[in-house]
Amino acid sequence: MSAVDRAARAASDAFATYGWLNGRKKGELLRAIASRLEVTGDAIIAIANQETSLGIPRLKSELARTCNQLRMFAGLVEEGSWVDARIDRGKVDVRSMLRPLGPVAVFGASNFPLAFSVPGGDTASALAAGCPVIVKAHPAHPETSKLTARAISEVVPQGVFALIEGYEAGTELVKHPLVKAVAFTGSRRGGRALMDIAAARREPIPVFAEMGSINPVFILPRALRERGAEIATGLHASVTLGVGQFCTNPGLVIARQANTFIEELATKMAATPCAPMLTSSIAEAYKTGVARFGSIVNRRAFVDGGAALFTTSAATFLDHEELMEEVFGPSTLVVEFDDREQLLEVARRLEGQLTATVHAAEGEIDDYRDLIQILETKVGRIVVNGYPTGVEVAPAMVHGGPYPATSDGRSTSVGTRAIERFTRPIAWQNAPDAALPDELKESNPLGIVRMMVPGLLLAVFYHS
Amino acid sequence: MSAVDRAARAASDAFATYGWLNGRKKGELLRAIASRLEVTGDAIIAIANQETSLGIPRLKSELARTCNQLRMFAGLVEEGSWVDARIDRGKVDVRSMLRPLGPVAVFGASNFPLAFSVPGGDTASALAAGCPVIVKAHPAHPETSKLTARAISEVVPQGVFALIEGYEAGTELVKHPLVKAVAFTGSRRGGRALMDIAAARREPIPVFAEMGSINPVFILPRALRERGAEIATGLHASVTLGVGQFCTNPGLVIARQANTFIEELATKMAATPCAPMLTSSIAEAYKTGVARFGSIVNRRAFVDGGAALFTTSAATFLDHEELMEEVFGPSTLVVEFDDREQLLEVARRLEGQLTATVHAAEGEIDDYRDLIQILETKVGRIVVNGYPTGVEVAPAMVHGGPYPATSDGRSTSVGTRAIERFTRPIAWQNAPDAALPDELKESNPLGIVRMMVPGLLLAVFYHS
Repeated sequence: MSAVDRAARAASDAFATYGWLNGRKKGELLRAIASRLEVTGDAIIAIANQETSLGIPRLKSELARTCNQLRMFAGLVEEGSWVDARIDRGKVDVRSMLRPLGPVAVFGASNFPLAFSVPGGDTASALAAGCPVIVKAHPAHPETSKLTARAISEVVPQGVFALIEGYEAGTELVKHPLVKAVAFTGSRRGGRALMDIAAARREPIPVFAEMGSINPVFILPRALRERGAEIATGLHASVTLGVGQFCTNPGLVIARQANTFIEELATKMAATPCAPMLTSSIAEAYKTGVARFGSIVNRRAFVDGGAALFTTSAATFLDHEELMEEVFGPSTLVVEFDDREQLLEVARRLEGQLTATVHAAEGEIDDYRDLIQILETKVGRIVVNGYPTGVEVAPAMVHGGPYPATSDGRSTSVGTRAIERFTRPIAWQNAPDAALPDELKESNPLGIVRMMVPGLLLAVFYHS
Repeated sequence: MSAVDRAARAASDAFATYGWLNGRKKGELLRAIASRLEVTGDAIIAIANQETSLGIPRLKSELARTCNQLRMFAGLVEEGSWVDARIDRGKVDVRSMLRPLGPVAVFGASNFPLAFSVPGGDTASALAAGCPVIVKAHPAHPETSKLTARAISEVVPQGVFALIEGYEAGTELVKHPLVKAVAFTGSRRGGRALMDIAAARREPIPVFAEMGSINPVFILPRALRERGAEIATGLHASVTLGVGQFCTNPGLVIARQANTFIEELATKMAATPCAPMLTSSIAEAYKTGVARFGSIVNRRAFVDGGAALFTTSAATFLDHEELMEEVFGPSTLVVEFDDREQLLEVARRLEGQLTATVHAAEGEIDDYRDLIQILETKVGRIVVNGYPTGVEVAPAMVHGGPYPATSDGRSTSVGTRAIERFTRPIAWQNAPDAALPDELKESNPLGIVRMMVPGLLLAVFYHS
């Protein structure tokens, strides 16, 4: 029996208990994982810094985010109303709620060794849903993976969590009949490969792959005139944050008559100190990407092995599909448009994106309802007068977007909706209380918000 | 330009308006479609009866169900809270809600020429979500399809609805880049073919295929002793309803020491009058299926070209995977188990099912929590002391289930949750009211239920 097979069987066995654990108990476990991560925080951060070069301050805040996220899901399942309980008392008594899918395979990201890796949002939301988790460790931070995996394993019941390693083990995991869903954060090539494997299974399973995007930033004319310098500063910070290694990194800027703005941005980009990237293969791919862009458009600022600024016209951009490709790292391309129709055409031609940002002066957005409407069909999140990097961990957050930003635009990997990925609705018809989960019992013993049909529901609903 | 290409482009163009229509307006259109279907009801029913042989009374009630369903979705979007609006006023202002995906391809079923075909639940829920719909007509009822399509086309704006015909056109439709989701009701072979096409697209799209199942009925020992004759009567009615041509038809019965019960059921099955099936190919497939079962297990009752009852032991059943295959028509297989472990093993070995039914005497279900728990991992709906046929159109209903019952166990094709299939969440960050949809504006102009974070939400929530 392979390690994957062993982990999958153990997860499936554990599901028979863990999948029916009440929210209070699951909340306890999630909080205990967070505490455990904090207790071993110094060691985790030290190893993560060795493996990723991300720096202590960033890793400290990433650990805090990770624990915050675990506690957000703890709060969600402790409160309990997330299950979307519905009770129809029409001709037939039908009651339904969301239930966990079963064992989930999680593929961690290289660029967030904590918040989008072993103890990250995918693991937290799957565990919160009631699904055992098997993480395939990212080879860029193996020791961080092991250390954080230990913090989880020490807390959860036998079989509920496992860590596996190796490319082939990852493939075997996605093919394993006992695995019921896959979550992935990484490259488009990697995500698509998992999608194809999952779709070809005898029993196809859902894959939630977050594959990054170029996160266009539209600067409307009046905003550029009024706040050009300020936007150049903010954009530079966003492009170069974490050596540009964010899936929400803004790789495309659309503006008009932007000479001064480009000048300012170029000065800042050229003065950006170099910093090591996550892995040598990421650095290599970045170099190749920058060279490719340099062969098509103007290179306006460049630090060898570091920040890069490119500029071109909308006409050239629209002629070169390859300029839509993500260059993972601290580079961005400013596209200058001539008229409104060109601006809209650039928006229309975009692939699916995690985010789009619009900078607008007071009242200016009213004149660009058509742009906003196009963007609503392209992205998971629209940011106004801000920057796409920084994905708040909050119930309303959507960190998703149409393919190829993700495998399934109907999902988010950040925010409380992330739990829904690992669940499905089940209905009970004409069932006595003894056969019903607590969430659907007549007396509502958990005191959760439920949809009553027909009925008048007075719900006091608190989220913090 | 092909008919499919024309329809897809028109749908995509129409989406730019229809996708942003408010709920009141969409509700009006759905109600107008229902009224139109009722006005032309006699003609529709007459043609449907010619094409399907389902009989006037059944088709009348199917038309009523279809209109009821359209009005249920009208009510849902008029009320408006279904969009799951969320407002975070934390460090960052983030607001999100569900938005429509874009043009949806719908493949109607042969066995419900109205309720699961052109004007059926898939069309109703997609239109309610804000998605234009292109239906691929089922070849078993082409004229019914045209007549009902006309009722829709006369009501909705240009491009929002289209009907296409032909196998190749259907394939072209699923491959078309402007189509964003697929809904299908039919055979496993047909559904899987569409899943594979959709997964192989450059931009894979979700497929919601409902592919039927064998809907096991578990009769617990005390229930059999107390109500055996009554259950035989109810089961016979359910197995033979509509010549057994329901995806919720009970094709498997699990019972212990069931001689008397089998005798009673056999008498009823043998006395069932023959009736024409939907198409000659369905009748042919039924004949083949019955012959295949007859070569493995005992044929206890048989009407040539009609009802068939098979019996076997749990041991034989567990040895023959092919006995899990659906025989679409008025046949069922009674499997007798010896002990509790065999009963549980039969449950464990089941594939994904739309439904499972349990007949239990007073208090008996308490002793079978383990059976219920296994069934919860296998099905979309658990029916207690009833029969699986008859899927109530109601907010809590789940007409879904793990693969191969459906392509995506996280969805339902009946009930208000069906609308969620055709939507995805979008977030707006730091957006002024002018850039926000009405559902998320500060003043809540639509008066819908929203999740406020942090906040205390007093929701008065009415569903009828």
